[in-house]
Amino acid sequence: METQSTIDAARAIFGDRLSLNANIRETHAHGEANAATSLPDAVVFPESTEEVSRLLRLCHATDVPVTPFGAGTSLEGHVTPVRGGISLDLTRMNRVLEVNDADLDGRVEAGVTRRQLNTYLRDHGLFFPVDPGADATIGGMCATRASGTTTVRYGTIRDNVLGLRAVLADGTVIDTGGRVRKSSTGYDLTRLLIGSEGTLGIITEVQLKLYGIPEAIGAAVCGFADEHAAVAAVIEIMQTGIPVARIEFADTAQMAASIAYSKLDHLTAGPTLMFEFHGSAQGVAEQGAMAEEIARAHGGSGFAFATETEARNRLWRARHDAYWAARAAYPGMGAFATDTIVPISRLAEAVSLAREAVTRSGLEACIVGHVGDGNFHVLILYPEGEEGRAKAWELDREIVAQALALGGAASGEHGVGLGKREFLPREHGAAALGVMRAIKQALDPRGILNPGKMFLD
Amino acid sequence: METQSTIDAARAIFGDRLSLNANIRETHAHGEANAATSLPDAVVFPESTEEVSRLLRLCHATDVPVTPFGAGTSLEGHVTPVRGGISLDLTRMNRVLEVNDADLDGRVEAGVTRRQLNTYLRDHGLFFPVDPGADATIGGMCATRASGTTTVRYGTIRDNVLGLRAVLADGTVIDTGGRVRKSSTGYDLTRLLIGSEGTLGIITEVQLKLYGIPEAIGAAVCGFADEHAAVAAVIEIMQTGIPVARIEFADTAQMAASIAYSKLDHLTAGPTLMFEFHGSAQGVAEQGAMAEEIARAHGGSGFAFATETEARNRLWRARHDAYWAARAAYPGMGAFATDTIVPISRLAEAVSLAREAVTRSGLEACIVGHVGDGNFHVLILYPEGEEGRAKAWELDREIVAQALALGGAASGEHGVGLGKREFLPREHGAAALGVMRAIKQALDPRGILNPGKMFLD
Repeated sequence: METQSTIDAARAIFGDRLSLNANIRETHAHGEANAATSLPDAVVFPESTEEVSRLLRLCHATDVPVTPFGAGTSLEGHVTPVRGGISLDLTRMNRVLEVNDADLDGRVEAGVTRRQLNTYLRDHGLFFPVDPGADATIGGMCATRASGTTTVRYGTIRDNVLGLRAVLADGTVIDTGGRVRKSSTGYDLTRLLIGSEGTLGIITEVQLKLYGIPEAIGAAVCGFADEHAAVAAVIEIMQTGIPVARIEFADTAQMAASIAYSKLDHLTAGPTLMFEFHGSAQGVAEQGAMAEEIARAHGGSGFAFATETEARNRLWRARHDAYWAARAAYPGMGAFATDTIVPISRLAEAVSLAREAVTRSGLEACIVGHVGDGNFHVLILYPEGEEGRAKAWELDREIVAQALALGGAASGEHGVGLGKREFLPREHGAAALGVMRAIKQALDPRGILNPGKMFLD
Repeated sequence: METQSTIDAARAIFGDRLSLNANIRETHAHGEANAATSLPDAVVFPESTEEVSRLLRLCHATDVPVTPFGAGTSLEGHVTPVRGGISLDLTRMNRVLEVNDADLDGRVEAGVTRRQLNTYLRDHGLFFPVDPGADATIGGMCATRASGTTTVRYGTIRDNVLGLRAVLADGTVIDTGGRVRKSSTGYDLTRLLIGSEGTLGIITEVQLKLYGIPEAIGAAVCGFADEHAAVAAVIEIMQTGIPVARIEFADTAQMAASIAYSKLDHLTAGPTLMFEFHGSAQGVAEQGAMAEEIARAHGGSGFAFATETEARNRLWRARHDAYWAARAAYPGMGAFATDTIVPISRLAEAVSLAREAVTRSGLEACIVGHVGDGNFHVLILYPEGEEGRAKAWELDREIVAQALALGGAASGEHGVGLGKREFLPREHGAAALGVMRAIKQALDPRGILNPGKMFLD
């Protein structure tokens, strides 16, 4: 590794867009939540695919690690440059390159954020539905196979990308997929790169599916006796084929926190489902009525429905403010979110088991979930300090193990990064993991792309 | 290569499920349509993943090629064992292994066919939507990334597979994905295998998404002045977000053939759209009314709508019988279908260009299309014999080149096989093709899995 000479060579390309500044290096030393911190030797801000390619050619020749960085909202340590080297900050590649109204598609640079894109699209009457909550970059969402609250209707980022431009370890630029809605020619390199967390290539441009803004949006909230009744209602709603755009679950602890924080005295602090419906005015009203009928059949109470923006926002406030409400309910405590997913038939059981594990641990927790997918987050609240954090970490490990035992996955949407590496063999098996390693070896034999992530060495 | 000794060793495992019979070898020498024929040295009928694994271990040790075979409905020569060796017929692996009503998923062996599965699912009130027309095996549909008329609503097979079991070249068995609706851990080996045409592994089991049978189904037919008006109507329908389950196009030649063949005197021999709507009774009626309004705004005429099964079938007969109607209209002629796809904004242009190419060629053709995806098929009708076939082949090449020039793909749903190999560099570029070859080399270094397909040597 010849880090200094590589930085010198890179400076000749990037000028003052290569930074050694201590503050800038520090903000590129970690994402959110995951405690791991490691300073890059330098931070580089490319403005084009060609510049990314030139940088990678340099780093490839000298074995200098490259760790891509977007909005820095990763929760699993993806952006931490554990072996130093270059942090490749893509946020200056933030142009919307094209929007094709007739084809319902568009092309963006990797550093465009989700909210920036949706603001841009509003005048076209279009939107991009994948919503992980954080204002992540589209490139980062691709790299981590992000999803969120709308997956039940619109799918994950995986389902909404038509093609990519990416730079391989040696600087080679590839285009995958294209503008067509489907193709049956060649290996699906688009899906191979999505979720590869920067370990196979650096995504620089993304061709996305877009959608017409729905004519009408409806929201609803409904309380249930317990998580089993709530999940049973969700299962029947899915079986009936009601095309819900979002179905979110919040448990008693979360609802108590949200009611206190957001002054939602009209709600009850019990297991709750929140719905969003997209469609025509008539269609949304029908979806709401059908969901209400099913919810009531499962003992749901206090079903409230609204279509006006303000009233809808009031119904969803508990969900929107969930994180801050939980933090406020447990002042002075640290917090981090688990991210497991199980088949929906096991979801109520998984939530119950997680709650039991929380109780055993002596920590506090609020639980929310993208219940239509079987994905849920336990926001663990722990006493600040090393001991508290260690207990929270241990609890997280236990909840992941529970999910895997129920046929689930170690992460529904946050990714592997540093935090979930140990679970890959158990989730995928040694043989499949061997294939992943063989692909990594074939495409990045020198191991310069986001080293230390995804695989335990 | 020690083919004879390998066959002897395989016979010890498979007994009379290994065949050297001339007729059986001949039926495994080709698929449909593509003229390429090559006899396998033997045909083997495994009944379990373990048997597939044992066979591959043998063949891997001796460099004997293995070409998987399902229903044999491939149109691009995928199943032709161009280098001899073993034809691996998976049709005895035809058990539905599980159906999970609550999770809307199920697991099948690779040899289960689409119709067999849907017959099985009927008692559960469920269905599997991917419909390529032919009664293909689910494994074959995965291998070729199949799709068909329902893609516009339900996606391709790629979007409807949760996980796979597959056997690698050396006999290693891997499980990919799982039962969860999404996971953000690890490389997406499921999507890597889907569309890999048996060149990376042999798919033996498939975990599928399933759907509740819709409460109501509606069908509609509408004529247009030309393909531009028809496509403009489709674009507006998509932008409006009407969740059409199918939108099919048929051109004047196809409609003339269909009207004559199926005695559909109530229809007009002009560019026509056929719709199918899935949903609640009220939802289907609303979708039909919205589609009609848009169709009329684009000059559509004779809009007919029905929800009763018999009336629906009557409206869709032109599409169902399209192939046979075209064959009957041009008696004694050979036929084969092109399979290109373009962004929908270029679809009318692509169809016009294809028609002009047909006219120049002096051949005949009927055009149908999965117009919601931009995918269309020109059924080329040519005088039987070598010269006619060569002209048809040349015309096919021209239509593919036209699609690629419009930003399209060489195949929307039929795959590469032997027939589309020459177009891969143009569609994907040399760099992306290099990545595909590197993956092939990493996973099948001895090249025993379906050799000669996908890549031109």
